[in-house]
Amino acid sequence: MNKSLDAIHHTAIQVKNIATAVSWYKERFACQIEYQDESWAMIKFANTSLALVLPDQHPYHFAIIAEDLAPYGDAVLHRDGTSSVYIKDQDGNNVEILKLPTFVTE
Amino acid sequence: MNKSLDAIHHTAIQVKNIATAVSWYKERFACQIEYQDESWAMIKFANTSLALVLPDQHPYHFAIIAEDLAPYGDAVLHRDGTSSVYIKDQDGNNVEILKLPTFVTE
Repeated sequence: MNKSLDAIHHTAIQVKNIATAVSWYKERFACQIEYQDESWAMIKFANTSLALVLPDQHPYHFAIIAEDLAPYGDAVLHRDGTSSVYIKDQDGNNVEILKLPTFVTE
Repeated sequence: MNKSLDAIHHTAIQVKNIATAVSWYKERFACQIEYQDESWAMIKFANTSLALVLPDQHPYHFAIIAEDLAPYGDAVLHRDGTSSVYIKDQDGNNVEILKLPTFVTE
């Protein structure tokens, strides 16, 4: 992993049924379920993750990790401690700028 | 990098103009151009790559690396030594199964 470059946290694709889609990927590929409920799932691969989302909840997108979201707009704080801003590239592709939670250690 | 899991080689998004799109990503993110011509580009991030493709040449997809393509169908050999098979998941998402070139060292 090249520390000087930004990292892609996940790619998100739309599926009709989360459980069915998780099974499809688990049966074919060496991957691990990081999170799964009825509305979304995050599947961990060796180097990045695949998010499965419902069409009425999230668009197709991929997420780039950033430390500062301010340049991109107003961030939304998620329940898992991450926060993010969605932007669109020149062609309308959705790019999520994602800030991971900061854990303070003493 | 978890060696026991499969890796995602790239996520591909469609753009109208490769050079314009490459500039958009280079201006905003710490990434490196791995390959670029007028018909496609591969942009390297820390852990995986982003492919920019033209709508009439490649669909939206992401690529999972595999050592054996036979279970997935007839592979197409590309000029860069990679070979691949496109499959669709249950929801019609395009998944490229990608075999990297094998370099024999003496």
